[in-house]
Order: sequence, then C-alpha cells, then structure tokens
Amino acid sequence: MAKYVYDFAEGSKELSDLLGGKGGNLAEMVRLGLPVPPGFTITTDACRAYLRTGAEPYGLADEVGLHLERLERQVGRRLGDSADPLLVSVRSGAKYSMPGMMETILDIGLTDDTVAGLAAQTGGNERFAWDSYRRLIQMFGKTVCGVPGEAFERVLDEAKARAGTSDDLGLDAGALKAIVARYRTVFAEHTGHDFPQDPREQLGLAIRAVFSSWNAERAVLYRRQEHIPADLGTAVNVVAMVFGNLGADSGTGVAFTRDPATGAPGVYGDYLADAQGEDVVAGIRNTVPLQELERLDRRSYDELLTIMAKLEAHYRDLCDIEFTIERGKLWMLQTRVGKRTAAAAFVIAAQLVDEGVIDLDEALTRVTGAQLAQLMFPAFDLSGRPERVASGVAAAPGAAVGVAVFDARRAAATAKSGTAVILVRRETNPDDLPGMIAAQGILTSRGGKTSHAAVVARGMGKTCVCGADSLDVDLDARQFTVDGRVVREGDVISLDGTTGRVYAGAVPVQPSPVVRYFEGALSPGADPLVRAVDRLLTHADKQRRLAVRANADTGEDAARARRFGAQGIGLCRTEHMFLGERRALVERLILARTAAERDAALDELLPLQRSDFVELFRAMAGLPVTVRLIDPPLHEFLPPLEDLAVKVAVAEERGQDPGHDKDLLDAVRRMHEENPMLGLRGVRLGLVIPGLFAMQVRAIAEAAAQVPDARPEIMVPLVGAVQELEAVRGEALGLLRELGVDARVGTMIEVPRAALTAGEIAGAADFFSFGTNDLTQMGWGFSRDDVEGAFFTRYLELGIFGVSPFESIDRDGVGRLVRIAVEEGRAARPDLHIGVCGEHGGDPESVHFFHEVGLDYVSCSPFRVPIARLEAGRAAVTSAGSDTR
Amino acid sequence: MAKYVYDFAEGSKELSDLLGGKGGNLAEMVRLGLPVPPGFTITTDACRAYLRTGAEPYGLADEVGLHLERLERQVGRRLGDSADPLLVSVRSGAKYSMPGMMETILDIGLTDDTVAGLAAQTGGNERFAWDSYRRLIQMFGKTVCGVPGEAFERVLDEAKARAGTSDDLGLDAGALKAIVARYRTVFAEHTGHDFPQDPREQLGLAIRAVFSSWNAERAVLYRRQEHIPADLGTAVNVVAMVFGNLGADSGTGVAFTRDPATGAPGVYGDYLADAQGEDVVAGIRNTVPLQELERLDRRSYDELLTIMAKLEAHYRDLCDIEFTIERGKLWMLQTRVGKRTAAAAFVIAAQLVDEGVIDLDEALTRVTGAQLAQLMFPAFDLSGRPERVASGVAAAPGAAVGVAVFDARRAAATAKSGTAVILVRRETNPDDLPGMIAAQGILTSRGGKTSHAAVVARGMGKTCVCGADSLDVDLDARQFTVDGRVVREGDVISLDGTTGRVYAGAVPVQPSPVVRYFEGALSPGADPLVRAVDRLLTHADKQRRLAVRANADTGEDAARARRFGAQGIGLCRTEHMFLGERRALVERLILARTAAERDAALDELLPLQRSDFVELFRAMAGLPVTVRLIDPPLHEFLPPLEDLAVKVAVAEERGQDPGHDKDLLDAVRRMHEENPMLGLRGVRLGLVIPGLFAMQVRAIAEAAAQVPDARPEIMVPLVGAVQELEAVRGEALGLLRELGVDARVGTMIEVPRAALTAGEIAGAADFFSFGTNDLTQMGWGFSRDDVEGAFFTRYLELGIFGVSPFESIDRDGVGRLVRIAVEEGRAARPDLHIGVCGEHGGDPESVHFFHEVGLDYVSCSPFRVPIARLEAGRAAVTSAGSDTR
Repeated sequence: MAKYVYDFAEGSKELSDLLGGKGGNLAEMVRLGLPVPPGFTITTDACRAYLRTGAEPYGLADEVGLHLERLERQVGRRLGDSADPLLVSVRSGAKYSMPGMMETILDIGLTDDTVAGLAAQTGGNERFAWDSYRRLIQMFGKTVCGVPGEAFERVLDEAKARAGTSDDLGLDAGALKAIVARYRTVFAEHTGHDFPQDPREQLGLAIRAVFSSWNAERAVLYRRQEHIPADLGTAVNVVAMVFGNLGADSGTGVAFTRDPATGAPGVYGDYLADAQGEDVVAGIRNTVPLQELERLDRRSYDELLTIMAKLEAHYRDLCDIEFTIERGKLWMLQTRVGKRTAAAAFVIAAQLVDEGVIDLDEALTRVTGAQLAQLMFPAFDLSGRPERVASGVAAAPGAAVGVAVFDARRAAATAKSGTAVILVRRETNPDDLPGMIAAQGILTSRGGKTSHAAVVARGMGKTCVCGADSLDVDLDARQFTVDGRVVREGDVISLDGTTGRVYAGAVPVQPSPVVRYFEGALSPGADPLVRAVDRLLTHADKQRRLAVRANADTGEDAARARRFGAQGIGLCRTEHMFLGERRALVERLILARTAAERDAALDELLPLQRSDFVELFRAMAGLPVTVRLIDPPLHEFLPPLEDLAVKVAVAEERGQDPGHDKDLLDAVRRMHEENPMLGLRGVRLGLVIPGLFAMQVRAIAEAAAQVPDARPEIMVPLVGAVQELEAVRGEALGLLRELGVDARVGTMIEVPRAALTAGEIAGAADFFSFGTNDLTQMGWGFSRDDVEGAFFTRYLELGIFGVSPFESIDRDGVGRLVRIAVEEGRAARPDLHIGVCGEHGGDPESVHFFHEVGLDYVSCSPFRVPIARLEAGRAAVTSAGSDTR
Repeated sequence: MAKYVYDFAEGSKELSDLLGGKGGNLAEMVRLGLPVPPGFTITTDACRAYLRTGAEPYGLADEVGLHLERLERQVGRRLGDSADPLLVSVRSGAKYSMPGMMETILDIGLTDDTVAGLAAQTGGNERFAWDSYRRLIQMFGKTVCGVPGEAFERVLDEAKARAGTSDDLGLDAGALKAIVARYRTVFAEHTGHDFPQDPREQLGLAIRAVFSSWNAERAVLYRRQEHIPADLGTAVNVVAMVFGNLGADSGTGVAFTRDPATGAPGVYGDYLADAQGEDVVAGIRNTVPLQELERLDRRSYDELLTIMAKLEAHYRDLCDIEFTIERGKLWMLQTRVGKRTAAAAFVIAAQLVDEGVIDLDEALTRVTGAQLAQLMFPAFDLSGRPERVASGVAAAPGAAVGVAVFDARRAAATAKSGTAVILVRRETNPDDLPGMIAAQGILTSRGGKTSHAAVVARGMGKTCVCGADSLDVDLDARQFTVDGRVVREGDVISLDGTTGRVYAGAVPVQPSPVVRYFEGALSPGADPLVRAVDRLLTHADKQRRLAVRANADTGEDAARARRFGAQGIGLCRTEHMFLGERRALVERLILARTAAERDAALDELLPLQRSDFVELFRAMAGLPVTVRLIDPPLHEFLPPLEDLAVKVAVAEERGQDPGHDKDLLDAVRRMHEENPMLGLRGVRLGLVIPGLFAMQVRAIAEAAAQVPDARPEIMVPLVGAVQELEAVRGEALGLLRELGVDARVGTMIEVPRAALTAGEIAGAADFFSFGTNDLTQMGWGFSRDDVEGAFFTRYLELGIFGVSPFESIDRDGVGRLVRIAVEEGRAARPDLHIGVCGEHGGDPESVHFFHEVGLDYVSCSPFRVPIARLEAGRAAVTSAGSDTR
C-alpha cells in the first residue's frame, strides 16, 4: 500500500516532490536536531489522488490517525482532550513556493469542550483561549466551508463598536465569547450545519480544503504565470501549535542568514513580541529589527543565531526562516533557501566561494542570465524619494520616463514631436500598436504578465507595468486617479518595469554599474556586485563549451560587442547598410530597365558596402565576422503601397502630374507580395538578380584584403535546397579566388526544409547558422509581426504556450528541426561549424538547449552577450542544464 | 578489369542501363535470331568514365579492337581493306530515348583508299561510293570536328549550280568526286589537319564525339525538360553498314506493330525505296504506306510481318522498328517499345489483355494518370480542317479559343467585357499576371516548358503554347506575323495546349468522350477508348489500397465528384460559403463592437451554413464528408486596403464624407497583416473569436441530423500544437453530444510543427489530413502566389527543382514531414485515419508517394478523381511504384 503520511522525522529536503518544500525542510530541521514542533506531512501523491477522484485515497484516514496518535504521544496532549487539548495547524506546502496562494488553518482542535482546557494550559488566559476559538471559526468557515469573510468581519466590527474600541485588543474574554456565539450562528446560516465540534472532523475537512486549494483560481493563474506545472499538487503539514502570543516572553519573527536585498553578510530579520505570524502579516503592530531580540531574550537570540549558522552551513546558501518563541522556548516553524534580489544572488554566490562553502562551478548554478539581465538595465535613482503613486505587475523591465498619454494615436504624434511618452490604457489591443511602438513605456490598469500589453512590450523590449489595479483610468477625461490623486495627460510619470512601481514626476535614471564595468568605465573591483559579476563571468568563460558572438551591423556595435565579451560577429545584416541616403541607389537598382542601368547602380553601391565592411573587420580584427548577404525583399526599400497610391490619386484628382511617384507606384505594385516573408528574398534574390550577391561578395573580399587579420565568413540566407547554395557558393568561391581572399562560405538554416535536408546541404556549406526566428515563424506558420499582438495573449491564457516561442525556443517542434540539422549536418561533414544567430541566441533557456544539442556558438545582440556567456557557462557545469527557472 | 564492350550476341534488353535502349534492343533481336547487321555496344560506364576524366578509360581501345576483329570476321570484310572495305556506323543510344539529341556518324571506314573498293562491292556503283564518302566527310566534319555545316552546304550548292541541278540526284560521280576534294579542303581549313585517312582513327574520334554529345547544350536542356537524370551517360553502338540506297531492290522504312495514334490493331508504317534512313528524315521524297512493300518485295514484306509479330509477342507490347532492305535482304536496324498517344495507350493495354498477352495488373502499368488527364481535356474538332498557323511547345493542356490581345492590361479589360481572350506575348513576366489570369490561353514565341508563361499557366490550369518561334510578335503594331500571314489584335485564334498547335479562327471544341462516360452520358461500351478506360479503372479500383475522395464545397460539385468515383469528400472549404451576398454578414461580424452584435451576425450565418451542409450531405449520403472549419483571415472578406484608402482620400479631397468606407478602412487597417498566410487564421481564429467555430459545428450537426446517412467529419485547420486542437475539440464534442450527432473530429497537418509533434497531436485527433499546399509553402518558406512567377522559372532553369514542388510533392523535404507524421501519429494511435487534401492528392507522382507512406486516402478536385483512382491502382500493382515517368 502507498505510504501517504511521513512523520517529520522520516522525511528530508530531498523528498520535496513528495513532501513539498515546507514539509521537506521541516523534516530536514528535525534531522539536524533543531527545535521543530512535532508534526507530520501528507504527501502530494495523496493530494493528486484526491484531485483525480474527488475522494481521499484508501487508507489515508487510518494513516493520519496513526501519525496523529504518535504526535499526541510526543506532545503529551490529545486532540479533543477537554482538560489539556492538543491544537494543530494544517498548512499547505507545494514543491515550489506559491506565497499566499493556498490555505492554512490554525488552532484545529478547539471546540466548546476544549476552549476551557486551552485557557487552563496557558495559565488561565481566558481571553487568549476565546480569541483563538474565534479565529478558528472565522478561518475554518471562510477557508473550508466558503462562508464569506465579510459576514464574520461585520460581527467583529459590531462588537468593537459596542465595546467602544477600534482594536481587537480592546475586546475582553467576555466580548470574544459573545463573538464566538455570533460566529457560530453565522456559520450555521451559511453552511446549513453547526460548526463541527469533533476535532477529528475539523482536521479531516481542513486537510481536504488544503488539497482543493491547489485548483483555486488564483493558484491556477499564479502557476501559469510562473510556469509551475499544473499537476504537481500540494502536500499538507499537520503541526502541533505553538503560540507566540502568550505574553512578553513570547513572540514571532522572520529572518535571513544574509541581507536578501544586497547580499551583505550578517543576519537580517524582524521580530514582533507577543504575536503570532499572522499578526506580522496583518501589520497590526510594527516589527522591530531582529537585533532587538538580543536585548529582549538573549538566550533565544543566541540559540537562533547558532541555528541560522547551522542552517546556512547545511544548505550551503542563504536561508530564510520563520520562528516563534513560546514563553522563552524557541521553535523553528519554517526554513528554505531564501529568495533574493539579482544583485544579492551574485554577491552571495561569490561570498560563498570566498568562504569555501561552494566552488565556482556551483556558484554558477546560483545565478541566472535573467538576473544578470536585470542588473544591466538602468535603474531609477530613488535617493530623491520620489512619490510612488501605484504598483503593478513588473511585466517588462527597464526605467521609463515620459508624459502620460491616453490614446495610441496621440502617443504616436507626441512622440514624433520629440517628447517622450508613457502610454496609459486600461488594457491594450492591436489598435494600440502604433502608440506602443512610439512610447517609452506602457502602463495598464488591467491584465497580468500574459496580457496583450505585457506580451507585446516584452517582444519590443519596451518597459511595461501592467495590472496596476489601483489606477482608475478615465480615457474620456484623459486622466487616471489613484487614491484621490489625479494624473492628467501631459503629466510626467516614471515606470520601473523591474519592480512594477509607478512614480509621479521624472525620476532620475542611473546607468547600471554592471554595464559601466563591461564598458570599461568601472574596474572589476569597484564594488562587491561588480566584483561578483566579474568573477562568475570569468569562470563561466572558462567552463563554457559554446562560444558567444554578437549580432552587429556597424563598427560601433561591433566594438561594443567586443567590450561585452563577444568572440566574433555571428550575424552582420547587410540590408541595414542599404538604408538612409543609399535607399536612392536601391531604388535605381529596382527601377533599372537594362542590365547596364542595374550594373551602374550596383557599381555605386560597391564602395559604400566595402567601407562598411572595412569598419566592421577593423573593430573585430582577429575574430570571425559572419556577413549575411542581403535578405529582405527589395520592395521593402520602397515606400508603402498605400501611401503612394493615395499620393498619386490625390495628385491626379488635383489635375497634377504625379511624376516619379507614378513610376514608383508601378514598381511597388509590380513587386507587391501577399506574403513578403515567403517571397522573393534571401538566396532567391541572389539567384534572380544578376550581380547583386557578386557585388556584396566583392565588397567583403576587397574590404578583407585591406584589413590585417580580417576573418570574413559569407553566409547565404533562406536556403531551402542544396542546389541554391551550390549556385551561390560556386560564384562566391570563384570571386574570392580571383581576389585572393580566403573566407568560409556557409548558410543560414532558417527554412524548415533546410533542416530536413541538412545532410545534403552540409555538402556545400562550411558552416550552418540557425535563424531560429524564421525557423519559428515557418515551423509554426505564424509571422511574429502579425500574431504576437493578435493571439499570443489568448494562447498564453489558454496555456497553449507556456512562454512565447519567440522568447524561448520551442524544444519539441522547432528544436527538433535544430537537432535533426545538427545530427545530419555533422554526420555528412564532421568539421561543420554550427551556430545560431536568431534572438534565441541570447535567451537563457535557449542557450541551454543549444549547449545540449552541441552547437559551437550562439550569437545575440551585444547587450545579451554577457547573459549568453553566463548561461553557456551554467549549461556546461550543470549536467542536464534543464531547470533554469 | 571492367568490361566496356558487349557484342550484340552478349547483351539483352535487361542491360539497358549499361547498353542503352538501342544497344539492348539490338542485342535482344540478335538473341531472337532476327537479321541484325553485326555490331557491338560500348557501355554507358565507358561514357561516364570518359566524361569524368576527359579520357577513354584504360583498356577501352584494346577491347574495341578485339570486338572490331570479331565483327570483321562475321561480315567477312576488314575496315580499311581497299579491295573490299568494311563500313560501320557509330550511333548513340542512351537508356531513355532522346530523339535527335545526340550524334550518329555513318560510313566510317571510307578513305581515298577504300572508296573504290566500296564501288566495286556495289557492282561498280561509283556515284554511290563517292556520295557516301562525301556524306562521311560532311557528317564527320560537323559532328566530330565542329566544322560549321554551312561551309559544306555552300560547296554542295555551288556544285549543284554548276551542274544545273537543284537535287543531289542530279550530281554524277565526277561531280561528287570533285565535291569530296573541296570538302577535304574545307575540313583542313577549319580543323588545321587533313580528314583522317586511317579508318581506326575515324572510329575512335567518332566514339569520343558520341560520348561528348551527352553534354551538348541541347541534350542537357532536353533532359532537364524530360526529367532524365543528368549522370546516366550514353552507350555507343558500332554497327556494320547496310545500304537501302542501292537501287529499286533496296529501301528503308519505319513501322509500328499497331497504330500508335489510335491503338487500332494491324501493322502501320512507311516505306521509301532506294533510300537510307536519313533520307526519310530529310523528307526529300514521299514515303509510301508500308502495305506497298507487299507489292514491291513480297518476300521481305512477309518476313517483316513475321518479325513484327515475333517482336510484339516477345516484348508483349506495341513495338516500333526501323529496317533496311539491301538488295532484297531485310535487316533490322532498331526496335523498341513504341511511343503512343494517350488514347492508344489505353486501347492497346486493354487489347493485350483481351489477347491474353498481359494480365490486368500489367495493363495498369502500361497507362498513366497523365495520359488519362490528357484524355479528359476537351479537344478541337479538326474535321473542318482548320488552318494551322504555327506550332510551339505544348506547355499546358486544353483547348482555348479567343481573340488575340497583345498586352496584359487590355487582355484583362477585354475579358472583363465578356470576350474570350488569348494573351499573345514574346515571353511573359510577372507584370503580365493580370492578363494571364483573365485569358483563356497564353501563346508566346519564346521559352520552353519551364518558361514563366508555362510555369504560371500550369499553376493556374490555363491552356498554354509557348516557344512558337516561327511567330514574329510585334507588340507595338499589336500583331504577329508567321510565314507572311498576319494575325492582328482582335483576330480569333485557337490554341491546342495538348499538341502545341495554333489555329486561325475559332476551331469547334468537342467534349472528351471519357468525361462524357464519367458523367454517364456515354455507356462504358461506347467505343474502344471508353471501354478500355472503364476496364482499367475498374481494375484499379479493385487493386488500390488508397481510397479516393474529392475536394468539393457545394452539393453540385459533390454530386459530380461522386459520378467521377469519389468515395467521399476529403475537403469542404467552408470559407467559400462566406462569399457573395453573405459577405455583408461577415463584415458585420468583423465590425461588431459588442458580443451581442457579433452573436447576432453569427446567428444569421447559422441557417445559411446549415443549408449548405444539408445539400452536401445529401449529395454524399452514406459517404464521409470532411468539413474544414473556416481557415482564411477574416480581412480577406473585406475590400483591399489600397482601394479603400484611395476611395477615402479622394472623397476627402472632394470635401465629401467617406462614410461607411471610412469605417471599413479603419477595420482593414486594424486587421492588416504583413503576411496573412502566417497570420490570424485557421484554429487561431476559432480560439480568438468566440462563437465562430461553435456556429459552424452547430450548423454541421444540425444539418447531419436532417439528412439520413450523413457522415460528417469535422476538421480543424492550421493546428501547430495539440493544445490548440484539444481546445477546439473539447468545445465541438460538447456541442455534438448536446445535439446527439456523432462525428469524427480531426485536424489538418499543414504546419511543419504539426508534423513534428504528430505523436502528441494524434492524442486529440480521430484523423489527420495533410494540407500539402501549406506544408510545402511553410516547409520551403515560399508563398505560391508570390514566387511561382517570380523565381520558379529561374529555379527550373538552374535545375534547383526538377518539377515545381507544388505540382509533385517534394519527397526529401516536405515528404519527410509527411513520413514523420504518419509514423509517429500511428504509433501514438494505431487506428488514426490519415489522408491528404492538398492539390498533390491528384498528382500521379505524389499519389505513389502517398501509397508508399501508407495513407488511407487521397482527396483531390473532382476532375482529378479518376486520375487518382488510376494512379492509386498503379501504385498498388507496382512494387516500389516509383517510376511513373
């Protein structure tokens, strides 16, 4: 028969799948000999069985009964004993912490019979006993039986009014006893039966309520947001009650073994005398710093510090704890490896290495690329104590300052006039896109991390705070109100996308010290954070198997990427070199009616391209530079069809000659494509327009000849069949030979067919570079531009995506194409060099995947180079490298 | 050591890979004891080795020498013997017939020394001997040494002028001797050396010339067009010369064992007395029907008929032959399984079954779906002897009649006014698309089967004749001239896309008897062709493993499909039901501002959809009908952006209120997608627009409830992840249950990711249907609309495609996705029903592929149903089913 219940003495933290985080850690503390109130844990297996069938699994009740008897023996009290009753708490505890999401019920065991016994136990503290009983009925009624909380609140408020007090403490034992009577009436009215007077029944119902709370709506939403699997279930902990509210020699507190904000060494916590944990959360009195406890109860304080040191040594990491002191006796109620800020994560990991607790490999597993990314955003300088007007969901990081504007059209117009804008909406929809593009940041009053605003903003790299539900947004009046304060269109506000905070006025922005260090403006030893980042990145560089390159199109970008640690350029998009004043040359190329006109336009482009490449090769001297031949359809260099058509029609309506616009319109109409992403672009252009690729190859070769130590690589885009690549490669190799320049010639793998025929394609390629953006678009059949706003929100809500496949690579579908191409490409050509230059190259989760499948390098935007370096190192030191949450 | 040379007595037709078609068949005739001039064959291996290295492979010369000696012994003459010389021909012969593409050299062995010996051999026929010598120098000079043909022609013309004759026959021995002298001068002038006087040298050079002719430009082009692999090489046959031009008791002819045009029984051929084969080709005298030979040379005629009967019995098929009679002695020069028309193929196959020569399975292998397709096109009734003005490449079949128009814009305008149009251009380019769409047929004077005109016309199903190079097209004068005849814009012409012929005036079109039979208008016994088609299709139906369904959207189409043998509907596109006057409802759906407005529009669509389905289910009662839920983006139902923008701008310019147009423009702008194929469509629409799919499912279920024996299947388009399908399936099953209707719910597999995750998707699908159009578009990353015209021509020229992947499925890339999905879908769900509903479902080559990978059915347009039935039968009876050329 399955074992569904573990005594604390039977478990360990390794069993957290089964016992949840809280249960596992309580058991661990028992194993360490720490003072934990006796108790036992009901497993997640039992919860899953209950959720599946709607009934407790066979044998669970008996098993709980046996463990309860053991608990009674340990404490020396029995549940329901009217003279000396045992009270227990029933606490949820899933594998991953879901703070506030699920249920806890305290004081189980109190009944009309036992309440006097509790008073006797606590030295005749009648008030305490009746207050506990009141709390039980209220908590049990609400949580287990679904009685509306307001019904109890109303009774309490009336009683306070009658007693002429505004505080619970103003109610004496008699008043509380009367409240208990009223509560029982409320309970019976709402549930149709009396509050259960059998403590065993209380316990059984409480356990089931905790099981059920796994599927409460808020819990489901939270898991979806945090990508916690939906089928884990929660464990349930049944623990003997201890009381911190039995007088001045009692109290409760929380503590961290180091400062979780900065990582600074030394314990850090809060203490509240004569209180229970719930009171700390409710904030009815102010806590004092933990150090005060030394004065109040030196013995307990010393014991606590000893325990914390023991815990840190045991967990080899920052721990946080909850404790209660009952009449001078310290009890540990919870511990776990503590959450911390991004900065603290780096600082603590480095400290632990210094202290000899962990080695550098392990330190790498203690930090993430996402944390490093956070540290690279500029942050608000809060020293001026700016006025915080609201808080919302930190949906897309960054620090944005601008005037509030309440509709997309005006936002775009205002931004165009040079004023920075924050777009404020209740929620956004695809109509708001122009405004979102124009704005510095986006603020909404509704929606979470998967709302339209959040998804689109992250896609665009815009700062976004969403779901700031205290805002009352009035679009007609063009203002929002929050706690009576009005912010009107045109008022300046500041959004912190990393914390979700919204400030009035322009908060000064300070650059990230980590970025300043990368830029060379700060020395590696400048402060503990920079020192820690330097140390861990250096180690990651030593350990990683993936090289990291950057995507950069200009000498300036390349130089920055090099400072950020890039080991080459993985993608130089040459089409960016066709913009600006050169657009006119591209226009001439497109409008050319003869080969001579076409060649003349190409001849003029040649020296311009050459000088672009010279700059790039100089910035990257000694390192490889992968230049992708022109990719987009040529009509993208012409004005939009709609604009031209209107211009020409209006001119004709006015009897004017539309002139050149008419020629352009004809060309745009001729070249119009229904689906330009799937049109005449990439290698197809090269094969259809004579001389275009040859001009680019010549420019690359001539530039390389001018720059010592240039290492050009030529990359052909959009290849789907080896024959395409062979045709281009043949011409390119001929030209290179003619100019005496040596360069690898390879291909993007971005069309599904290229991945599926990689074995053949490898025969004509010196290297592969995965274009995972297009591979995702074609593999899923959706264009990022068109669908992210239109249906990703809905898809994230429905759970069809855990995360956008443009953010992290879709391992099962697109990832399978990558695997196929790597395996079959290498089988055909063992020395094939393989990288990735899609945006996934800088995404932490995806970097681990690319490490797993054995790529040689990833290439990403310069800003993400350090993140990729770190994650590549992390991937190398973790075996599977899978869990990067 | 490799064996490079086979005596005819050593070979057989089974060795055609090695000996080529001609060599293998000559050997076969020798084995049958037929009178074949002695000779030997040099293998394709030798040719390939030569082409690879540029030199004859080691040992070849010796081997040729040995076989030559044997040949000399057999004939009793020696090469170069001045008294009684052996002459030989050197003939190319590849595995697949490439008529006129490669070289033949006759009369090898003639020199100054041997010419007199030849005269003596032929009873002192000096004229014949010198004429033969002249022919050798001319043919050898041109073919082996690249001397321009005109140089020889000029000499010949001058000689004729001098002799006062316009005919070769007017030249006597003396004149021919003088011509030989002049020819040798011409030869020396152009080659820098004398015409070789060593017969062995002549032979060696001739062999190499034949090898090299494999890579002559015209041969390369021909192979590309006919999809003959480029690396086969040709064999070379060295054969003792026999002469049909030695007087009235000599002659030459070609014959077929049955009529290759109609399949009618009885021999059929042409004979020319006192002539060589070359003279028949050159057409200097008119041939007579083979039956005349009976009168001229009864013995030879009887022998020939005996031989032909023997050949047919041996080859078990129609044979064609070439023969020569040298002074009353019959020699067989060639035989092969003869080419025939589509009609003859069916008739002969059925006859051979009747005659007990082959069984029905084998008969199926003797016909093709492409032939059946040809028989289903309407044809011109040529009984009125219409005037043929030109011939070109038969690029896309059909019979089109219309007025000639010389530019695309006018073609579109003329067609719009209701006049049928033939677009005439020198060649077409993407600018001509609107005219091509509007025209009945397309005629060009340049380009072959892979030209823009041909590729696009085939894609559109338009009749096309291209490369009619006798046309002089004058676009400015809007006319074409051919042999002095002028056809002006507005003149009616008729194009036969099946034969490539162009007629003046309107040729009457007669419907295909085969189609009339399918339609029930002709009985199966109506004529030999219909009888044969009926018989073979009936057998194909019995043998095939693939079911055949049709793609049809209306009751009318469905009924026709059923008459054509469809076993159900594999694809009903519901979006076609949203056009016409219903467009207004779709507009309301799109413009709805509230859920109530949206639901109201859907409520009005419901009964319309329901009645569509009722009609369809009635037409297909008892058979499955797969209904695909709406697929295209909704904005496709709105007017084009450009039109609306111009309309609104012009109205505003005039100071008018654009009204509704402005609302529409806003909606179109809002919904505009850069790449609609990759946008908000298919299952995405269903998940984003509440009630849309539910309305359709309800309409299907309510219709099914009304029609006895309705077998609806509901198909979800564009699924890429199982979660999408689960969401739609859950809702659909709920509705079906509510309405008490039973229906399978399945999915298209048309997104690459769906194929790659088919194992998961199968968990939520009762069936898969491959949408190979989209799978091809997304797998290759090109949109058919955008690229077929723009670069397919170039790709076919470059050999990147052998055939458009939209025509026949790309086995390596897209086909691999199909294989993966079938294997993993069935592994997950063994009873998964799998079909295909892309256009490939009716393509012969692709049907074989779908048979191979184990699909349950193919679905195609009603017209292609018989083709698919035939090919599915053929696939079942051939083991690999691969070679359908």
